[in-house]
Amino acid sequence: MNEVSYVNGETRIFGIVGHPIAQVRSPEMVTAELVRRGWNAILIPIDVLPQDFDACLAQLMRVANLDGLIFTIPFKQAACRLASALGEQARSVGAVNALARGRNGWVGEVFDGLGCVEAFRRAGHSFKNQRVMLIGAGGAGRAIAFAVAAESPRSLRIFDIGAERASRLAASIAELNPDIDARFGKPTVEAIDILMNASPVGMLSDPRMPIEVTQIPPAVIVFDAIVKPEPTRLLELAQQSGCRTVFGRQMMHGQISKVVDHFEKHNATLV
Amino acid sequence: MNEVSYVNGETRIFGIVGHPIAQVRSPEMVTAELVRRGWNAILIPIDVLPQDFDACLAQLMRVANLDGLIFTIPFKQAACRLASALGEQARSVGAVNALARGRNGWVGEVFDGLGCVEAFRRAGHSFKNQRVMLIGAGGAGRAIAFAVAAESPRSLRIFDIGAERASRLAASIAELNPDIDARFGKPTVEAIDILMNASPVGMLSDPRMPIEVTQIPPAVIVFDAIVKPEPTRLLELAQQSGCRTVFGRQMMHGQISKVVDHFEKHNATLV
Repeated sequence: MNEVSYVNGETRIFGIVGHPIAQVRSPEMVTAELVRRGWNAILIPIDVLPQDFDACLAQLMRVANLDGLIFTIPFKQAACRLASALGEQARSVGAVNALARGRNGWVGEVFDGLGCVEAFRRAGHSFKNQRVMLIGAGGAGRAIAFAVAAESPRSLRIFDIGAERASRLAASIAELNPDIDARFGKPTVEAIDILMNASPVGMLSDPRMPIEVTQIPPAVIVFDAIVKPEPTRLLELAQQSGCRTVFGRQMMHGQISKVVDHFEKHNATLV
Repeated sequence: MNEVSYVNGETRIFGIVGHPIAQVRSPEMVTAELVRRGWNAILIPIDVLPQDFDACLAQLMRVANLDGLIFTIPFKQAACRLASALGEQARSVGAVNALARGRNGWVGEVFDGLGCVEAFRRAGHSFKNQRVMLIGAGGAGRAIAFAVAAESPRSLRIFDIGAERASRLAASIAELNPDIDARFGKPTVEAIDILMNASPVGMLSDPRMPIEVTQIPPAVIVFDAIVKPEPTRLLELAQQSGCRTVFGRQMMHGQISKVVDHFEKHNATLV
């Protein structure tokens, strides 16, 4: 009788908790990173109904060979209350996407924004003293804004179709770091160094662009958090304009590295 | 960035629940059988502390992409109360080792004994009208006794170092099927057709045999539920005596087939 080689009684379990769950990419991607680091571990999809979240997670976290959890829609905010300690980004953003079983409890942090910053770092781009235009102040935009703010940009202009939401986010950033000129701003490609889209405009079959321009100055670095299509129309225009680009996929890879770093750093059994 | 091919967002989850868990073989073996049948599924180890069992299982069973559970030591009896319907063997034995999510609730059955009978069937041996000597009336012996009893043997002699336990098991068998001459009996290789060991005597580095003989009549079929060492001293003697044998490993394979049949039969999402 055959045996598979990728799971056995000693395999440490990680999970991604969401609802629905079939669309997530973490199982195949994070598991590959866990295995690449030499661990006998797997990350499985865990489909939890929203009304079951609190009771179910309390018990899942008692499973003795479960070492870490990732949270996706709609649980990133709710996951904050599961952590006994929160990282700096999680406290600012008010969301957790990775929870690691540590020696003294569960440690939560959010890596959506940090993954984006990591992607920039790997591509050789720094935010320091740069003028950043960020479009989108929802969950992703919020995480990216706080992570970028930690990199000491000169200015941060934030736009959202909900102007109030963008203004509030800008105010939070300015309060956290008064050295950054953070405020609401209309989408523009002029007098900026980095253009970032964290809005859903342009996703899947949406033919629009988050900013209505036909040309981008070639010195501007253009980022789009959207993974499908690849490239988005915004990134296509950026490439045609001779800009350097950072793709949603690169942010995703940055997130995965950061999440597994988090598991590695805190995990009592794996290190 | 790499991806693994054996788990993704659509993978259906199965688990083996026990404590401790590192020693179990079901993850690699049952997963292989699930995959062999063409399912996107995996069976993972789930280490649950005994004091957490009821609360934890109640919540695990609400995870929407979890389709089946196997139970091992020390939870086979406790698992009975999780089922909304019990199979015939589970009712007789008072234990459940496989629980499948069915359309109308969770269906529990115990396949320890049925797996042994399946191993005999595959080897071409029938219990019908045979005289069976069974050593061991613990969990495994109990399951094997009831499964063998369903195959209409002529007689069943049961021995256990706890004579009371063996007598009670024999009485239960006789009550269930009065056509079987079931009773307590000292270990013997005379006037029997099938010799079965379901006691732990001879396991791992235990040098003893469950029955003190130096020769077994070659017409006797000899079975040992013990998987390590392989062969056990009993099976070694049987082979030297020219007997046909059924190994613990064959019972294990029979169990795996039966367990996955059970998942396949009841599972609302997989069929």
